Amino acid sequence: MLKVLKFGGTSVGTLERIQNVSQIIKKFRDQGHDIVAVVSAMSGETNKLIEYANNYSKTPDEREMDMLLSSGERVTSALLSITLNEQGYPTTSMSGREAGIRTTDEHTYARIEDIETKHMQKTIKDGKIIIVAGFQGVSAENGRVTTLGRGGSDLTAVALAGALEADVCEIYTDVDGIYTTDPRIEPKAKKLDKISYDEMLELASLGAKVLQNRSVEMAKKLNVNLVSRSSFTPEVEGTLITKEENIMEAPVVSGIALDKNQIRVGMYGVVDKPGIASSIFTALADANINVDMIVQTRGLDNTTNLDFTVPTTDLEKTKNVMVAFEADSDKIDYNDSICKVSIVGVGMKSHTGVASKAFTAMAKDNININIISTSEIKISMIIDEKYAELAVRSLHDAYQLDL
Amino acid sequence: MLKVLKFGGTSVGTLERIQNVSQIIKKFRDQGHDIVAVVSAMSGETNKLIEYANNYSKTPDEREMDMLLSSGERVTSALLSITLNEQGYPTTSMSGREAGIRTTDEHTYARIEDIETKHMQKTIKDGKIIIVAGFQGVSAENGRVTTLGRGGSDLTAVALAGALEADVCEIYTDVDGIYTTDPRIEPKAKKLDKISYDEMLELASLGAKVLQNRSVEMAKKLNVNLVSRSSFTPEVEGTLITKEENIMEAPVVSGIALDKNQIRVGMYGVVDKPGIASSIFTALADANINVDMIVQTRGLDNTTNLDFTVPTTDLEKTKNVMVAFEADSDKIDYNDSICKVSIVGVGMKSHTGVASKAFTAMAKDNININIISTSEIKISMIIDEKYAELAVRSLHDAYQLDL
Repeated sequence: MLKVLKFGGTSVGTLERIQNVSQIIKKFRDQGHDIVAVVSAMSGETNKLIEYANNYSKTPDEREMDMLLSSGERVTSALLSITLNEQGYPTTSMSGREAGIRTTDEHTYARIEDIETKHMQKTIKDGKIIIVAGFQGVSAENGRVTTLGRGGSDLTAVALAGALEADVCEIYTDVDGIYTTDPRIEPKAKKLDKISYDEMLELASLGAKVLQNRSVEMAKKLNVNLVSRSSFTPEVEGTLITKEENIMEAPVVSGIALDKNQIRVGMYGVVDKPGIASSIFTALADANINVDMIVQTRGLDNTTNLDFTVPTTDLEKTKNVMVAFEADSDKIDYNDSICKVSIVGVGMKSHTGVASKAFTAMAKDNININIISTSEIKISMIIDEKYAELAVRSLHDAYQLDL
Repeated sequence: MLKVLKFGGTSVGTLERIQNVSQIIKKFRDQGHDIVAVVSAMSGETNKLIEYANNYSKTPDEREMDMLLSSGERVTSALLSITLNEQGYPTTSMSGREAGIRTTDEHTYARIEDIETKHMQKTIKDGKIIIVAGFQGVSAENGRVTTLGRGGSDLTAVALAGALEADVCEIYTDVDGIYTTDPRIEPKAKKLDKISYDEMLELASLGAKVLQNRSVEMAKKLNVNLVSRSSFTPEVEGTLITKEENIMEAPVVSGIALDKNQIRVGMYGVVDKPGIASSIFTALADANINVDMIVQTRGLDNTTNLDFTVPTTDLEKTKNVMVAFEADSDKIDYNDSICKVSIVGVGMKSHTGVASKAFTAMAKDNININIISTSEIKISMIIDEKYAELAVRSLHDAYQLDL
């Protein structure tokens, strides 16, 4: 079996943790597997380097940032390789360049264009464990080192697993898998054995600290079996994220996600002229603002109210865009005391009454629902932020996710 | 003018020091010069990484050590480039690979094979300052990153200066040049304006902390004008190390060097059979031991005494080699309470009486000379270590080097 393993910053945060990672690799090797491990920089290193750069410039040259930041992963890959070699396991480190990862020329947020696997294939065939410095590649245009942005090491692992047609891609963090909901909110939350790519994407907030959507999307596209598990408790099997077809008897609801990082924008008394909504959302899209939920209600006086949500981080950008539309409405306000609760499950597709169970649960606890949106596998509700945790627990109970 | 500048670990040891280096570069740039700067890792970084590796292995894999250690220079080159760009000076960092430095495959002590300067030439022509990560190249055989061993960043600078036909190669440290002798021993020591390559090579111990012989030898071979100066006092002109022809009116004696890192090996009552000396020195050479001075004296009883010196660091290796020759002599002893004092000057070639002046000075202070060796431009004497400083001061006076 060919396994691609990825170890994040906390998993390689100290010399002792790196040693611990070598034990995980050795165990798999002893079982006869071929191993390609992708490593991040030791935790804290990347932030230290960013701080150094910011000492000189608020907007440091991006080509130079890539030269700077790519060094941390190189250090970890060499150290892990040194300890494995010392323990008698032939191992070689590889930079992104050596691993054949060619990217676009967009420094600090490059996209992988293709992977030339010849060198890796030969090295695996020669019986060596490969340790790849994650988060980096080289510009296909000019050979300059690039980095892949946030979650870049996960992406490296998934892309390599796809290119090498690995049997599995295991992403190690300090969390042992994906839970039905955040255990800090609902202690009865259960770890999921399996979940589909689409559910994982919709449950993004549950996986926020363990898997970036960008990686899950790539895994789906390349048909890579992803596993989320912990390097601190490697004896615990993690959660497999895979194709829907691979999941027998999918539950109706897999999990409850909570997102507090949304702002509700309200436009009141919008003049009902054709194309006004279209103009607004085009302008927001042009500004790269990710509008999530939209609801439009018509008033008696031929005006409408328009509500939508945007990520909290885009608040200032949104306000700048909305200035142009102030004349088109009586009032625009911004409410950050809201949150989004989502119920996710592929089983919804073939079951009815899933939504009404949610509304009943909310009503029972006197929680007012501001906006509702549904997709094939998700029901999302905007509610007052103060009810966030209560809503999560009520829904977890209503769908009996603790059983 | 094309200037290659090299900044060592202490010159880039802190963010503030790196900022200071950027001022030196800017000043030259404002004067209209083209600049290629070579940088070391921030002081302490390389040792930290070596310590990390040694935590896992006493003999870490050398290919991995190169991956590990080459990261420190990359960080410095990016940081220096970031601050120069921020200050409005277009600058790009380059790894050894990007600078076109191709080496042998001897990891951790690779030798530069050739430099493909096309990319650098174009970048200079485009009006950019180049910051090269020193100490590293790539194996011409397989493209894997290599490092050049001790003094590798100096070597990078000299080799680049040669390949680019730079007008000068300035090596910045925390010392402002080469002195007639160690100022800690003789406070009247004077900084030299100019000195020939050969004198510099013979005065190695005076330059030990500022210039490695390997770099001076390469500068001589490539005819590179080397300058030793300080990044802490950039307003002070340093010492130019150049061809003898470039030095008008060379002084008879340029400097007095002291080397305490020598062991005197004494073999007493050596059976005088043909080829015995040859066998001994062949065996020492085979063990990579650098024998410095040799003297053989014949006794009355057809035996000889053989004395020679080796570096202190080679003591154990020397003892191991000498075991094979124990039967050939009455006794072998090792004396580390000796030192070597050398008088160096190209003017000696055309002057007589230089040596006798030294012997007179030693005699006046009752210092016994154990071994003497002379070359065209050097007179070396082995004396008791306790007289080391006194001898240096006496000779400095005798040749009036303070005038």
